[in-house]
Amino acid sequence: MAILAGDALQTQAYEVLSRLQCPAEARVKIVAEIARATGTVNGMIGGQVVDLEAEHTKPTAEMLEYIHRSKTAALITASLVSGGLFAGAKDGEVAHLRAFGLAIGLAFQIVDDVLDITQTSQQLGKTAGKDTASEKVTYPALIGIDASLKKADALVNDAFAELKSFGEQAETLKELARFLVERKK
Amino acid sequence: MAILAGDALQTQAYEVLSRLQCPAEARVKIVAEIARATGTVNGMIGGQVVDLEAEHTKPTAEMLEYIHRSKTAALITASLVSGGLFAGAKDGEVAHLRAFGLAIGLAFQIVDDVLDITQTSQQLGKTAGKDTASEKVTYPALIGIDASLKKADALVNDAFAELKSFGEQAETLKELARFLVERKK
Repeated sequence: MAILAGDALQTQAYEVLSRLQCPAEARVKIVAEIARATGTVNGMIGGQVVDLEAEHTKPTAEMLEYIHRSKTAALITASLVSGGLFAGAKDGEVAHLRAFGLAIGLAFQIVDDVLDITQTSQQLGKTAGKDTASEKVTYPALIGIDASLKKADALVNDAFAELKSFGEQAETLKELARFLVERKK
Repeated sequence: MAILAGDALQTQAYEVLSRLQCPAEARVKIVAEIARATGTVNGMIGGQVVDLEAEHTKPTAEMLEYIHRSKTAALITASLVSGGLFAGAKDGEVAHLRAFGLAIGLAFQIVDDVLDITQTSQQLGKTAGKDTASEKVTYPALIGIDASLKKADALVNDAFAELKSFGEQAETLKELARFLVERKK
């Protein structure tokens, strides 16, 4: 029943997308975007498979970025791009949203893994230290906490750069990016 | 991994549909059609849930038809309707394809359940008698073999009637319907 419920929710998503109140051309692009982001190549399922296979191994930074890009950044990116497509964004604007999403997605995951080490369970509101206990592959484990935080900062700066052409319209997205690196839980 | 593979195939289907070589409006309709046919309300997943819940109970003919309609006929219908939409069929033509699909889908399942009783494993090429052994809900169990075969014949006649307006173009579909009730395995 749990598997059927999962399958049903996945199917339901596409039924909802097919009824969006925007031109059919945009709806089709959004379907493709969500399908790729959840799929096997650079998508969430592909990332999860590589993550499972990487458990208890010593993965490279390249593999780690693939996992974060696919498991975390892909869906954040798809959300941003889908919103843009729904609102009628031009190709160039969609490209900026995509690059912004990738950067904050990677930054989000790095900060998440750092907080798992530096914060207490009480501060996080969930069990801290789980990654170390389960030998999960993370940036802090691979390059240390300081280098990880520097990488997250650099990614957020990259993200900001992608928003320049949107001007004040992008203020909410900027706040979101800032929140991702400054949050303490 | 098996669950991820299933999720991946489901997602992949929509990625493929989004790239079909037909107008975006038709592609969106096909996405909606497939999503509904595999979904919870009158779709394959809904039918499977009711089927699981009906095991070892004494279900009504109404519930049995819901299961067959959802688990078997929905996907056959979606295949026919999607082909029609892809080829640019008009609303009226799509309605005929839909009614044809429902009728042959129900007939297919009835014949399948009859063969499970009347044929040997060797004739079927798979284990016969499985439905009876597992107390599966079937038409033969509910109304007997003769009444079941009559119902299948009536459904195929209904199906033929839906094809009238297509003339000779529908010859392949007619052959398909005939095969479904005349097959011995």
